[in-house]
Amino acid sequence: MPQIDGQRLLRDLRHLAEFGRYKTGVHRPTYSPQDVESRRWLVDRLREAGLEAEIDGIGNIMSASPAKGPKLLIGSHLESQPYAGWLDGAMGVIYGLEVARAFRDDPACRDLGIEVAVFADEEGHFGSFLGSRSFIGELPEEEIAQAVNDATGQTLADALAEAGYAGRPRYVLEPGRHVGFIEAHIEQGDTLESSGKRIGVVTSIVGIWTYAITFEGQQNHAGTTRMAARKDAGVALTELCHAIATRFPEVAGPRSVWTTGNIRLEPGAASIIPGRAEMTFQFRDADPERLRAMELALERLVADSDAAGPCKASLQALSRSTPNTMAEPVQAALKLAAERHAPGSATPLPSGAGHDAQYLAKRLPAGMLFVPSIGGISHHWTENTADADIVLGCQVLATAAEALLRTA
Amino acid sequence: MPQIDGQRLLRDLRHLAEFGRYKTGVHRPTYSPQDVESRRWLVDRLREAGLEAEIDGIGNIMSASPAKGPKLLIGSHLESQPYAGWLDGAMGVIYGLEVARAFRDDPACRDLGIEVAVFADEEGHFGSFLGSRSFIGELPEEEIAQAVNDATGQTLADALAEAGYAGRPRYVLEPGRHVGFIEAHIEQGDTLESSGKRIGVVTSIVGIWTYAITFEGQQNHAGTTRMAARKDAGVALTELCHAIATRFPEVAGPRSVWTTGNIRLEPGAASIIPGRAEMTFQFRDADPERLRAMELALERLVADSDAAGPCKASLQALSRSTPNTMAEPVQAALKLAAERHAPGSATPLPSGAGHDAQYLAKRLPAGMLFVPSIGGISHHWTENTADADIVLGCQVLATAAEALLRTA
Repeated sequence: MPQIDGQRLLRDLRHLAEFGRYKTGVHRPTYSPQDVESRRWLVDRLREAGLEAEIDGIGNIMSASPAKGPKLLIGSHLESQPYAGWLDGAMGVIYGLEVARAFRDDPACRDLGIEVAVFADEEGHFGSFLGSRSFIGELPEEEIAQAVNDATGQTLADALAEAGYAGRPRYVLEPGRHVGFIEAHIEQGDTLESSGKRIGVVTSIVGIWTYAITFEGQQNHAGTTRMAARKDAGVALTELCHAIATRFPEVAGPRSVWTTGNIRLEPGAASIIPGRAEMTFQFRDADPERLRAMELALERLVADSDAAGPCKASLQALSRSTPNTMAEPVQAALKLAAERHAPGSATPLPSGAGHDAQYLAKRLPAGMLFVPSIGGISHHWTENTADADIVLGCQVLATAAEALLRTA
Repeated sequence: MPQIDGQRLLRDLRHLAEFGRYKTGVHRPTYSPQDVESRRWLVDRLREAGLEAEIDGIGNIMSASPAKGPKLLIGSHLESQPYAGWLDGAMGVIYGLEVARAFRDDPACRDLGIEVAVFADEEGHFGSFLGSRSFIGELPEEEIAQAVNDATGQTLADALAEAGYAGRPRYVLEPGRHVGFIEAHIEQGDTLESSGKRIGVVTSIVGIWTYAITFEGQQNHAGTTRMAARKDAGVALTELCHAIATRFPEVAGPRSVWTTGNIRLEPGAASIIPGRAEMTFQFRDADPERLRAMELALERLVADSDAAGPCKASLQALSRSTPNTMAEPVQAALKLAAERHAPGSATPLPSGAGHDAQYLAKRLPAGMLFVPSIGGISHHWTENTADADIVLGCQVLATAAEALLRTA
């Protein structure tokens, strides 16, 4: 059985966290200088581990094992959300590196190939899952040409040129090469912590459906316009929010979530009746039927608002990702490995966040392993996981990887 | 009876609209170069009309009539809202100029004094009614020292220095000098237009009470945080808006208005549960009892939200202006003058907007005259009033002014 080196794993994770360090977290947006530097550093580490490794034209890092036998792909992403945690993405990548080293160091595993993948921009600074979509052949050149960083205004083309990646080929998954893909990740919620579990075996990744809802009314003076004569777009918006709060619990499933993440009233002044209002609304579920039912409910609520007047209400779908079930054999291998190293420590659970694994799952048997997030905190620089949980998760992954490769 | 010259009045109004012209409106923020230029131009016109005129240390223009008899103060403001209308404020000022000329030109009126006042920053670029408060002695130096333009970040002190007004004395109302104050203004609503009336005799100016309402929740991941575990500040805010929409019609009077002018969710991203939310809420009424009842209702709704949880809700009063009744003799003189020049054209109505007259009313018998706003449009560059209505309003004002001065 391949034995991971917990100290080596933690040392590499801590070294990686120096690229863009921010307090106890990291600020490492995709293609930023610190992100580019971290990719270079990782390529060196992969080569030291005996893998061929290169960065491709979208910033993905792909590696090739010299092993003659079957190969398993392990990976995640390196960039971070702004001023966010040190483990989100990074942990899944360094797990891949450490498992590859454990296989190399174990003579019994020499013919079993671990290949490490890093997918660019999972955090969506320039687009939606650019790296994993590129790798499965679902990222058209036109989308790359048009993509822009919302926060900085920089085009993806300029960012790739600055990073030195422009003009390089983009690696695409080689059919038949891998027996599967495993991504390890922090849970980002508190299900493991609150239930005293240490390993989450992911059953599915939710679909995320996001909408812009717009209300058109009539901008006017907040003192001289009688209530009866108003077309207040802000009132129409907040009344829709109330209708959602009333209706959604009736159509949602036990793990459905829904969120109004942003609201904007125009022009946004104390003494002016808002003439236009916009909100961003999102819901998630692992069940496609449930997603469709929630969308139908939303469509009806917006249509009701529009029909009731006095403002025009309209709904625009911004994105509708497909929920994905994780492969049964991968789930079984992870559960068995967790039982071996920490009996009773594993629990099945769905992922409420999107991950590269949901795109890989379209081409390969894919699975995910979660480790506990302290306090359930995520996308914040205070994000953390206990060292012992980080080490346990990696050993469970190594053991599951061997089992999957031996049964291939 | 003093006869105003309608063509001269319109010519001056159109000339004034060239200072900061924007489409068919004006962009003339307080102390902007175009605003300063317009003040200089007006001082020249007032001097041509036989008045002594100066600009003081806050940008107010005060003028003195050589007439031996009683004096009436007429005026309004010169600056505009951003990209707003050509008549708002400007019309009331040029009415004063034209009435002063009509009195000068009428031998029977030589001993009756018309004095024209221009109050700076009625539109609130740097503060709340700076000019009229300065004139009645209610603008402390500390407030001037601390005031900042919200939109540009420029301090009031810097703006006054740039305009060339810094260090000048500030003129204060001389007790016993005036028999009263009249401000003419566009209605800014559609009451006159929709009822076929041409002159509004203002009965009162509403009190405007404005609040910041803040909700503190817990920022978290919109995918991994279960609905039951959330403290969504945005939901708390929109539910309060719904509670206001339900409750306020029960406590409001027939002319009360209330508005949520702005909403802000933090951090404002599709996939993040808002940890903090803020709204600006304002209501208006001419009845102090009604204002207090609405405030009590608001206090209870916010306290209910806070008590219900899971977010902390708090209410902060930003401003509470006092409603003011317009002086009976001024109302009567305006009504009588309107009857003479356009029988049946006048109607009493309250002002839903704040005006300099509400501050002058604290020291002088004060009144206001409204002319119709086409389509009720205000604070927008398309604001307009029919030429005939502009001319009629000025003649009504001149006739009312004579009546007030003769009975003084």
